[in-house]
Amino acid sequence: MKIAILGGDGFVGWPTCLHLSNAGHEIHIVDNLSRRWIDTELGVQSLTPMDSIQERCRIWKEVTGRKLQFHFLDIAKEYERFKAWLQEYEPDAVIHFAEQRAAPYSMKSDRHKVYTVNNNVNATHNVLAALVETGIDAHLVHLGTMGVYGYSTIGAAIPEGYLPVGIETLSGETVEQEILYPTRPGSVYHMTKSLDQILFQFYAQNDGLRITDLHQGIVWGTHTDQTRLHPQLVNRFDYDGDYGTVLNRFLIQAAIGYPLTVHGTGGQTRAFIHIQDSVRCIELALQDAPKRGERVRIFNQMTETHRVRDLAELVSRLTGAEIAYLPNPRKEAEENELIVKNDQFLALGLNPITLQDGLLTEVVEVAKKFAHRIDRSRVPAVSAWTKDLAARVDRDPEHRALRTAS
Amino acid sequence: MKIAILGGDGFVGWPTCLHLSNAGHEIHIVDNLSRRWIDTELGVQSLTPMDSIQERCRIWKEVTGRKLQFHFLDIAKEYERFKAWLQEYEPDAVIHFAEQRAAPYSMKSDRHKVYTVNNNVNATHNVLAALVETGIDAHLVHLGTMGVYGYSTIGAAIPEGYLPVGIETLSGETVEQEILYPTRPGSVYHMTKSLDQILFQFYAQNDGLRITDLHQGIVWGTHTDQTRLHPQLVNRFDYDGDYGTVLNRFLIQAAIGYPLTVHGTGGQTRAFIHIQDSVRCIELALQDAPKRGERVRIFNQMTETHRVRDLAELVSRLTGAEIAYLPNPRKEAEENELIVKNDQFLALGLNPITLQDGLLTEVVEVAKKFAHRIDRSRVPAVSAWTKDLAARVDRDPEHRALRTAS
Ligand SMILES: NC(=O)c1ccc[n+]([C@@H]2O[C@H](COP(=O)([O-])OP(=O)(O)OC[C@H]3O[C@@H](n4cnc5c(N)ncnc54)[C@H](O)[C@@H]3O)[C@@H](O)[C@H]2O)c1
Ligand SMILES: NC(=O)c1ccc[n+]([C@@H]2O[C@H](COP(=O)([O-])OP(=O)(O)OC[C@H]3O[C@@H](n4cnc5c(N)ncnc54)[C@H](O)[C@@H]3O)[C@@H](O)[C@H]2O)c1
Repeated sequence: MKIAILGGDGFVGWPTCLHLSNAGHEIHIVDNLSRRWIDTELGVQSLTPMDSIQERCRIWKEVTGRKLQFHFLDIAKEYERFKAWLQEYEPDAVIHFAEQRAAPYSMKSDRHKVYTVNNNVNATHNVLAALVETGIDAHLVHLGTMGVYGYSTIGAAIPEGYLPVGIETLSGETVEQEILYPTRPGSVYHMTKSLDQILFQFYAQNDGLRITDLHQGIVWGTHTDQTRLHPQLVNRFDYDGDYGTVLNRFLIQAAIGYPLTVHGTGGQTRAFIHIQDSVRCIELALQDAPKRGERVRIFNQMTETHRVRDLAELVSRLTGAEIAYLPNPRKEAEENELIVKNDQFLALGLNPITLQDGLLTEVVEVAKKFAHRIDRSRVPAVSAWTKDLAARVDRDPEHRALRTAS
Repeated sequence: MKIAILGGDGFVGWPTCLHLSNAGHEIHIVDNLSRRWIDTELGVQSLTPMDSIQERCRIWKEVTGRKLQFHFLDIAKEYERFKAWLQEYEPDAVIHFAEQRAAPYSMKSDRHKVYTVNNNVNATHNVLAALVETGIDAHLVHLGTMGVYGYSTIGAAIPEGYLPVGIETLSGETVEQEILYPTRPGSVYHMTKSLDQILFQFYAQNDGLRITDLHQGIVWGTHTDQTRLHPQLVNRFDYDGDYGTVLNRFLIQAAIGYPLTVHGTGGQTRAFIHIQDSVRCIELALQDAPKRGERVRIFNQMTETHRVRDLAELVSRLTGAEIAYLPNPRKEAEENELIVKNDQFLALGLNPITLQDGLLTEVVEVAKKFAHRIDRSRVPAVSAWTKDLAARVDRDPEHRALRTAS
């Protein structure tokens, strides 16, 4: 297959490119490198030293003989160039990772909110409009998140995308309708994913586009079979308060002897998936394309759920790190249950990698190896969800102590 | 009250400005005049000769002694200027009309789709982000549409915004949750209103913004008590295939002896409201502001529903015009029931104006008076929802005959 990978320079995009290239597909990376610019803006960098995308493609060719083509293009801002690109390359499938993906970044300031909405909505809508306009019948696979449902659910199992509801008709009977599972996004970033769902529903219905939306859990880990092939193929590893996801952050904190920072009671349950499983799931979803006229296929892409404080305790047991409880800068319920259905991927043959000591240790090893590159001042979380919460976090003595210690 | 009216130069915005100015409020119009540019792009014009906004404000001052201030500003593209503007003027309420509002225009081409999404989502989101950032606790009143639910509903009564659904929890009990009534938008324009709803829900929940969303039916008529005060205060009157709404278009067609063009069987039921009631409803909603922390208030702003073919027959009886049935360029069910609840406005004291011969005749009079300004080639509908439908409309002999006759 000829596959366009939008956002292929990112944390999940890069190992996906390698995995699918390795499987024999023709891979085209489309990226505006905005994530690297955001590193520059924030003054942070990947823990793992990351070469330019051009250099990474060159090394992959050297190591495997396979070609990765890189195209520098902003899919949110350059609609006409993107459409022309599609027309020229006619991909069989498009995998769409190209969005601003950090909830804390999306809440940093009004500028960041405006950027996130503008970038993510236009990116997704441009892809849809260009597919319709060019008439290219590619399968579109998008990465969404289970976070759209809000973490403060009432303790119901999260089904795969749809909810049957009974609606009373005028004649008094109750008719069952399948609706998009109602969302309750908890950040501007999550909100954009909730908007994406409506865009997909419309274009699948109006134009028969074939779309799969993968509601992914929090990705952890760093290596896949392919990134291990050469030191310069290493994946990016974010540990800062904006882009570092919770488990990766704990492992870094442990590696440098910093306390594991749990926000609130740590009673929030989150869904997780290892990066290796993430790329496998994307491949499985790719092979199982919906037909024209079918509704959007929604899969939950996760393998296990954990409470944040249980994870902290697990990492603490493994590494001896202390745990620090800090005020929560997010607006969310302190404690919640979460049960997520992932029957579709299990049915497609996914054999989940779970949080094993071996893999956790591997991440700690990566962290230790590059510990000299860690900027400790970047480890605390920095964005607060509202102005009130910002003030509260700011006043907290423990948070203050950590900030000055770092 | 000091009221900012975003999109105050438009069809509903202008009479709202006059109505609220007349009621003694301090009115600030914010508009980028994009609707006038779209007239230029399409080569169409309002049936009624429309002066510049500056001139209209001058006349209002002359006639009533009251001041309307006009501010030229693009709220979608100029976030920083808009924020500074808010900070300077500190309105008590913001009424937000400033979106691209024609479904056919939003479906004309990919460029129009991209523009509509970009303009509408950023406009709404910028207003929300700027209110949070400036800390201005203004009541935000937005104009939405009942069209978000899709016209192909199953024949259920459309409640005012929310639907209680039973969700089964992990412990096996069923908990009732109020969710946003599920949408099924039928055009890119309607889709943007469905996106707006999610933006409102988030900002009401996260930041306590006070928001009322008015799901309006199709507006008909042209005069209100204030626009009648002076010929140059007349409201705009769109009759072209993009911006002309169905009843106004029938009345124009009748006035110039053109057949009333019904698409498909005309079995689609739509909700209607007269422009005079529209401005009254906005005033009522304005006075009934939600409290901080309350969920978004959603009102259905309509007074009656009719099948399109029944409306055509009514206008035909009144005027002797013929009816022509043409293929439907929209993708929608041919026949549908529609019952809409509007209990909230009735409770607030709305006394609806219904389709009376008198008012219909008044519109026909307006149309006759300006008949010399009608460009007959602009009367047929021109945008098709999909490429297949475009081809079908194009081949239809009756549609072809009308196009060449006009
Ligand atoms: N990492 C996770 O834990 C996680 C969890 C759930 C969902 N997701 C989703 O998976 C996708 C990829 O996540 P990631 O962790 O790899 O993020 P990332 O930020 O590392 O990668 C995103 C890539 O997209 C590019 N991009 C952004 N906007 C673009 C634009 N307008 N035009 C072209 N390229 C653009 C960026 O430069 C970057 O390379 C995102 O959509 C994210 O929401 C990620
Ligand atoms: N007219 C109807 O029948 C009807 C029905 C239901 C809902 N509505 C809604 O009511 C609102 C007003 O409708 P209308 O018929 O008056 O439309 P309109 O097009 O006549 O007016 C919209 C006004 O907003 C301005 N505008 C658009 N984008 C802007 C931007 N980025 N910055 C500043 N100004 C901008 C335009 O220049 C125009 O003056 C719309 O949101 C529409 O969706 C209208």
